[in-house]
Amino acid sequence: MTQFINKKEDIVTEAIDGLVQSSGGTIARLDGYPHIRVVVRNGWDKSKVALVSGGGSGHEPAHAGFVGEGLLTAAVCGDVFASPSIDAVLAGILAVTGPVGCLLIVKNYTGDRLNFGLAAERARAFGLKVNMVIVNDDVALPDLPQPRGVAGTLFVHKITGAMAEAGASLADVTAAAERVIAATKSLGMSLDTCTVPGSPKENRIAPSKAELGLGIHGESGVEQIDYENAKQAMAAITHKMAPLLDNKPHVVMLNNLGGTTVLEMSVLANELVQSCIGKNLKFIVGPAAMMTSLDMHGFSISLYPANSEEIALLQAPCASSAWPGCVEMHPITVIEVPDGLTPIQPIPSEHQATAELLTKCCHILMDAEADLNALDAKSGDGDTGSTLAGAARAFIGGLDRMPLADHTQLYRAIGQELSQTMGGSLGVLLAIFFTATGDAASSGVPMVAAFQAGLKRMQQIGGAQVGDRTMLDALTPALEALDGGLRPAAEAARKGAVHTSTIVHAKAGRASYISAEQLQGHIDPGAEAVARLFEQLSA
Amino acid sequence: MTQFINKKEDIVTEAIDGLVQSSGGTIARLDGYPHIRVVVRNGWDKSKVALVSGGGSGHEPAHAGFVGEGLLTAAVCGDVFASPSIDAVLAGILAVTGPVGCLLIVKNYTGDRLNFGLAAERARAFGLKVNMVIVNDDVALPDLPQPRGVAGTLFVHKITGAMAEAGASLADVTAAAERVIAATKSLGMSLDTCTVPGSPKENRIAPSKAELGLGIHGESGVEQIDYENAKQAMAAITHKMAPLLDNKPHVVMLNNLGGTTVLEMSVLANELVQSCIGKNLKFIVGPAAMMTSLDMHGFSISLYPANSEEIALLQAPCASSAWPGCVEMHPITVIEVPDGLTPIQPIPSEHQATAELLTKCCHILMDAEADLNALDAKSGDGDTGSTLAGAARAFIGGLDRMPLADHTQLYRAIGQELSQTMGGSLGVLLAIFFTATGDAASSGVPMVAAFQAGLKRMQQIGGAQVGDRTMLDALTPALEALDGGLRPAAEAARKGAVHTSTIVHAKAGRASYISAEQLQGHIDPGAEAVARLFEQLSA
Repeated sequence: MTQFINKKEDIVTEAIDGLVQSSGGTIARLDGYPHIRVVVRNGWDKSKVALVSGGGSGHEPAHAGFVGEGLLTAAVCGDVFASPSIDAVLAGILAVTGPVGCLLIVKNYTGDRLNFGLAAERARAFGLKVNMVIVNDDVALPDLPQPRGVAGTLFVHKITGAMAEAGASLADVTAAAERVIAATKSLGMSLDTCTVPGSPKENRIAPSKAELGLGIHGESGVEQIDYENAKQAMAAITHKMAPLLDNKPHVVMLNNLGGTTVLEMSVLANELVQSCIGKNLKFIVGPAAMMTSLDMHGFSISLYPANSEEIALLQAPCASSAWPGCVEMHPITVIEVPDGLTPIQPIPSEHQATAELLTKCCHILMDAEADLNALDAKSGDGDTGSTLAGAARAFIGGLDRMPLADHTQLYRAIGQELSQTMGGSLGVLLAIFFTATGDAASSGVPMVAAFQAGLKRMQQIGGAQVGDRTMLDALTPALEALDGGLRPAAEAARKGAVHTSTIVHAKAGRASYISAEQLQGHIDPGAEAVARLFEQLSA
Repeated sequence: MTQFINKKEDIVTEAIDGLVQSSGGTIARLDGYPHIRVVVRNGWDKSKVALVSGGGSGHEPAHAGFVGEGLLTAAVCGDVFASPSIDAVLAGILAVTGPVGCLLIVKNYTGDRLNFGLAAERARAFGLKVNMVIVNDDVALPDLPQPRGVAGTLFVHKITGAMAEAGASLADVTAAAERVIAATKSLGMSLDTCTVPGSPKENRIAPSKAELGLGIHGESGVEQIDYENAKQAMAAITHKMAPLLDNKPHVVMLNNLGGTTVLEMSVLANELVQSCIGKNLKFIVGPAAMMTSLDMHGFSISLYPANSEEIALLQAPCASSAWPGCVEMHPITVIEVPDGLTPIQPIPSEHQATAELLTKCCHILMDAEADLNALDAKSGDGDTGSTLAGAARAFIGGLDRMPLADHTQLYRAIGQELSQTMGGSLGVLLAIFFTATGDAASSGVPMVAAFQAGLKRMQQIGGAQVGDRTMLDALTPALEALDGGLRPAAEAARKGAVHTSTIVHAKAGRASYISAEQLQGHIDPGAEAVARLFEQLSA
């Protein structure tokens, strides 16, 4: 699969450089590329306990993305899914460790244990105080003597990071790390394998299957299960974890393994709350991509029964935007829908002249149905005439509900009526036109100016300009001329409508997708409707 | 493609519920599922200008993930890639708009324009002050009359969000939004299309191609180009954008369209800095997934020439962890590798008895080569004998470099030598054993206790226990008996070694992958080596 990388052997150094440059100067890197790939806090003064983590790359933002105030002091990066060298680890330790010492936080993989372990020995030979903890939070196989270290590692980073920042001793930081490790439990699930740069993708998981209890290096899961949906997937994980929990309140980390969409992660968060362990969960970290397995389409759950002091440490400020925070889980606050969704029904009133005028308008549009459809067929789906005529027929049927004697209310009522009876963009646009006209009229603007205000709003929302081959080409000049009476308005509308037949590069509406040859010589149906309306009203 | 969802029609409501429950009580939702899907700030008191955005779902964390203090007041969520209804938008406006009014931030799509537009009209009919801005930052087609709204929308959210939070007026907030919109430019690229829930995936982009100037709804890009690597991809984008920039410093947003790994995004960040527009970039937002297109394997760049006041607004604190912050771009600080990577060379010294003892040990191991290889072949790759014998031969060859007269230094020197000459896990473990033994000896611990300290450290790092069928099964009892002399140590070692032939469920090392039948009756080669060493030394 194609990826946004350059040479495979440069991925890690280039990614580190990208990270360092976009972290606001808070982090730096050690010299020694490509052998030594170590990200360190910039300006670190060694006066506090240093925290060094790392391992193979491919788990970003872990670990380099978690270097910063209140988190890690250094991250030692290996190649993708490969342990860093002993020298690289030693360089990291030596770069950040002062008189108060250093804690190595290592995930439980043989390569990492050995290389961090020997580097620690070498550092001790320099007289440095170096402790090491091994994170083994994976509970995929309950009786595995060497459980893997996975996302739960981040609980260790954050809790010890906040402690070290506050000046805790190496012994206290180490004890806290060991306490967190002893009680953290993680389990992952994926719908697909990850894509290792430079390697063909392994198609191990069939589309209808999910792999449960898998690692973060593409290694096979403990079992493949039939996959149904998000609810069943979350149930499969939480049922495995439930027996491992005591009744204490837990903090849960919901980790995106890399390729799961933010949308899916939120659906999974919802399932987590409703799951059989939902009642045990008091705080949540995420959902977020924290310990990934490249682009793996999966997630993991990590659980830790943090006490109130540890919650405070998990919530302490830190410098990395990769840490999503730790918040108390809340039931959903559902706020009542405000009044006003049901449109205010106008109070019907009678007004003979207005009723006749509106009825005449409707008949003009109904009579034009076939002609307008024919024009529309040149550039669209041939239904402009029917859309307008249908709305006109509905309007006549509801005329006795209209506030005919109150013109200000009438405009709004027409707008409301059209938004309910007339489909498509045109219905919404005309509804906006009449509603905005009513707004203007209600604030005392004279009729023609009110129509122009409505036009302006319709134009703003619709986005079309005069010259774009829409009804605006007739309506705009008509309203400009309307102060002089209906006849000049009608002439202006007709002139504008005729002009649309020469506009062959439509810029708005469906006609914008039609070729010049097809449009040439045909008037826009919306403009024609406007012209006919004014012409026949003025006749 | 399988996804972590339940019923397609429930995706958006379930995702909103997941988001609300994992946001620490800062957000709530309106009643009215499934028709009305509106996320609002919890406890919003309407005393400040409200900011309402939204549109189709599938762009998470936009927009619901950006509701909170210093950002949006409400987000109205449509179905995936579909505009929300007029009623839903109106409900959102009514729920959050107080006397100082409300700004609608709408991306430039017809459905969103119309539905937000008409909802705004309806809200105005209630006497509310409602402004609306339309974001059209996409520059995929420079002469497009209706450019789409894409990731640049988030500049508007953040800048107006910080202003509104600080108490700015609706007029000022609107003017700021319009200023940002007028000068924001975005362009995206993808290596693959997105997977719309419930629809078959469109395979429009061949593996060797990239699509440039694509939208956030899976719509086709402006062109497909041959894809080479990250550098060329970034160059294709930045060369299109460079002519659109003036010489002002810009803030750049590096947005993950959903399916790009964090590792790739960092590589792209590095390329961005080195690109032809790199010199114009002074601040960066991301890389992060902010305005996604579900799982699209792509990214987008958004550019805005923010002034110092706007930078302060982009950097102002806000309540959403989805906003990654806005930091100044920094050249890479490269810190010198600390001294100490080159191991301290011991000062050679002579000591006849020690030289003879060590030489004897080496010969014992060299003589056992074939036997140990044969034993290892039962459970591993048959090279334990050669590994030990090879290290022994190398050690004899370097004996005159050893500090033979200084036993404390000698242990460390042996450790160092083994870490350089002996491959595999065993080499690292023995190096740890001797280095830790040297540490203990140098602090005055007697020899046997020092060996036991070394053993403990090796065991901690290696992770194996007595009974796991490793060399520990002979070495541990031997060192326990060593205070009584070499003979009892040899007897204990042999007893332990023989016992390994009955351990058929190995828990550590390569033998843990081997069936019981294959292991039965065979002594572990490491344990055998230890037993022979003690036996022949005591003979």
